[in-house]
Amino acid sequence: MADLDAVLSRVRERVLPDPDERERLRATAADLTERTRAAIADLPVEADVVQVGSTARGTWVSGDRDIDLFVRFPADLDREELEEYGLAVGHAVLPDGHEEYAEHPYVKGVHDGFDVDLVPCHDVAEAGDLISAVDRTPFHDAYLTERLDDDLAGDVVLAKAFLKGIGAYGSDLRTEGFSGYLTELLVAELGGFRPLVESARSWHPPVEFDPEGHAERTFEDPLVVVDPTDPTRNVAAVLSAENLARFQHYARDLLANPREELFEPLTSEPFDSGAVRDHLDRRETTPVAVVFDAPDLVDDQLWPQLRRSLDGTVRGLNDRGFDPLRARAMVDDDGERAALYVEVETATRPAVERHEGPPVAVRKHADRFYESYADDVDPDTYGPFIDGDRYVVEREREFTTVREYLESDAAGDIALGAQIEPPFADRDVLVGDAVATLADRFGRGLREFYEPHP
Amino acid sequence: MADLDAVLSRVRERVLPDPDERERLRATAADLTERTRAAIADLPVEADVVQVGSTARGTWVSGDRDIDLFVRFPADLDREELEEYGLAVGHAVLPDGHEEYAEHPYVKGVHDGFDVDLVPCHDVAEAGDLISAVDRTPFHDAYLTERLDDDLAGDVVLAKAFLKGIGAYGSDLRTEGFSGYLTELLVAELGGFRPLVESARSWHPPVEFDPEGHAERTFEDPLVVVDPTDPTRNVAAVLSAENLARFQHYARDLLANPREELFEPLTSEPFDSGAVRDHLDRRETTPVAVVFDAPDLVDDQLWPQLRRSLDGTVRGLNDRGFDPLRARAMVDDDGERAALYVEVETATRPAVERHEGPPVAVRKHADRFYESYADDVDPDTYGPFIDGDRYVVEREREFTTVREYLESDAAGDIALGAQIEPPFADRDVLVGDAVATLADRFGRGLREFYEPHP
Repeated sequence: MADLDAVLSRVRERVLPDPDERERLRATAADLTERTRAAIADLPVEADVVQVGSTARGTWVSGDRDIDLFVRFPADLDREELEEYGLAVGHAVLPDGHEEYAEHPYVKGVHDGFDVDLVPCHDVAEAGDLISAVDRTPFHDAYLTERLDDDLAGDVVLAKAFLKGIGAYGSDLRTEGFSGYLTELLVAELGGFRPLVESARSWHPPVEFDPEGHAERTFEDPLVVVDPTDPTRNVAAVLSAENLARFQHYARDLLANPREELFEPLTSEPFDSGAVRDHLDRRETTPVAVVFDAPDLVDDQLWPQLRRSLDGTVRGLNDRGFDPLRARAMVDDDGERAALYVEVETATRPAVERHEGPPVAVRKHADRFYESYADDVDPDTYGPFIDGDRYVVEREREFTTVREYLESDAAGDIALGAQIEPPFADRDVLVGDAVATLADRFGRGLREFYEPHP
Repeated sequence: MADLDAVLSRVRERVLPDPDERERLRATAADLTERTRAAIADLPVEADVVQVGSTARGTWVSGDRDIDLFVRFPADLDREELEEYGLAVGHAVLPDGHEEYAEHPYVKGVHDGFDVDLVPCHDVAEAGDLISAVDRTPFHDAYLTERLDDDLAGDVVLAKAFLKGIGAYGSDLRTEGFSGYLTELLVAELGGFRPLVESARSWHPPVEFDPEGHAERTFEDPLVVVDPTDPTRNVAAVLSAENLARFQHYARDLLANPREELFEPLTSEPFDSGAVRDHLDRRETTPVAVVFDAPDLVDDQLWPQLRRSLDGTVRGLNDRGFDPLRARAMVDDDGERAALYVEVETATRPAVERHEGPPVAVRKHADRFYESYADDVDPDTYGPFIDGDRYVVEREREFTTVREYLESDAAGDIALGAQIEPPFADRDVLVGDAVATLADRFGRGLREFYEPHP
């Protein structure tokens, strides 16, 4: 078995930016900073510019090409002006850039091959004075810069490469994984990448770290890392239980069987329809898919709505007796179509369903139940009869096939996201082998579904 | 709507024995008592004879033809001699009789058209000195005789006719209903039939009566009537929650809509195979039946074993995902064949089944689970993957059709009664429309199944 140190040293060679890459980035960042200062000089207010994020701290994974520049305006500048001046600077520095929106609108663009974010914020004196969430970033930056020496910075890069490799990196709401800031805090707190994975393999969630020992509230999340710059914030709030478990699994795996491939994202070919059909034959389940136009939203808005829709669909299938086995939301690579994909264990149910009434002894309810189903009222119902101490009827079931249900209005009576509702109303419903045709668009999601790994 | 008093008065006319019937019974009982005394005179020990039961107390329903005579031997007579002398008297009085077995063997026979039981017991001074359970009967008899005047005796007959009409009369373990003694105690305690049903309609089980106020323990049963002759015994111990609920249902029904038919047992034709098929078409369920030779046992031994076997079969079907909807044990009129009859909602399951492992954080269990299903060990399993905080696999399902399961050894791995096991091993399994052929033998049970009522 390979030695962990040897593996890590080979990984380091691959993922740590070399002097050339560092120099290229430094030069580009310096140039951008200069241009930003020039643009600021044209404004009627004072401001300064600060480079933040992993490329500022030397904790980026080789090949990442993100430069984040924050333009700090006076704390008393009102929001409207801040946004106006912020965009003015952004467009001046990145003439081909476009506007995006976080807490404030900001400009994103490409410069010398780097992806550049030019974000306006308020220059507050302490983290406690934040006006908006982006104002926090320079404090994060300062905190980490002070604590990460070159060794720890190198370990942060290892940790990020590892989390990318296992698919748990990224705090966007599609991934629900580890943010860069979270990763850096954990490496700083535990003293390196190896101590981090050695610790993680035996965590018993909920696990809490509070580097500054200043937590001002309790948190319900499986992993809690109290923000050193904000005693009321859990830096790991977005991390799902699943990604935490995944990290623990692969931490153990790495320590038990060190190997470089754990630091490389799985790249696998999308499934074709034949592969889907092979799995359906082997599994003997009934696959169903509800397919509709994906609303034009950023992942952070789209995915929570897709997940809610998927959960509602699974619950609806379950309540109607179609026994969902496993489910996944999918979006095609172009972001054009979305699919709620579910395998159910049974696609049909009988014409009757059991419906339990109250105990006969609970007279008022019992009388009402009995009378509402008595022979002369509802001759198609079996019963009421007595089972144990209760009235029971077998009444007509509303949906006897999974298709009837998914095509019915009832399938839309779930908590869909506001922007999912309109395209969901025009949904296509596929049942059985017909889902194999989805491989054209959703081949990647289908592969992940049928080749699941931790 | 008919008036309850008018209905009861018409029912009384039908169910209360008329003077002729009473005289015929009195004469026959006197004759039998005389013959019994003569037989006792031939024994080397002293004994007396006492007539007990409803025909002794004038609380029988017209047409019942049971005479119970108890031969009381000295309390110090040992068991062997009691049985020997008891059978000697029995055979002398009822030369064509046969032996049956309760606590002791006894002789049962027909005399002048009456069904006669001649039962030996010990003549103990107080109920507290009982040697065996049958010794209690004369105390029951004495207690009731003292409390039931002619009016109450008439109401006992009404109550028995009502309980027979609704199918809840009889303390045998097939019926699990109201015994005669229980019925008489309830009528005595509540002061008549009408007060009894008026009380019952609003009972909230557990309901407890203790006529002598001397209970020496607590009971778990839904209805408790502490035996006036034994403070540790619940006279209603055999009564099922279902029959108690049935009694409450029909008590309300009678009071809301008084009618004579409630005092007449439902007589309905057995189902033929066409009727079964009609219901199957309407219900779209899959019926399954496990049919085997009924062991040659009295109902009190057979039915608890059948019920246990039915419960185990239903549990097995449920655990395997075949979703039983309703079930019933049946025995044909000749007592030759027995059927465990179940309708399931789904007769097939996919080739894979979900199997949840431990939370990833519980390291020892998690490691063991993961390793036992890892790719190189079990390539046919999907996963282990992570769902929430746990490992999950989809592994091969043992039985994908209900027939495979019912024909397998696993279907016999349930708590069958000792005497059910051998014939169960030679079972026939019917699935789907084939069950319609069962109408030949089990037409009555099938009608009760498909025309259920309270």
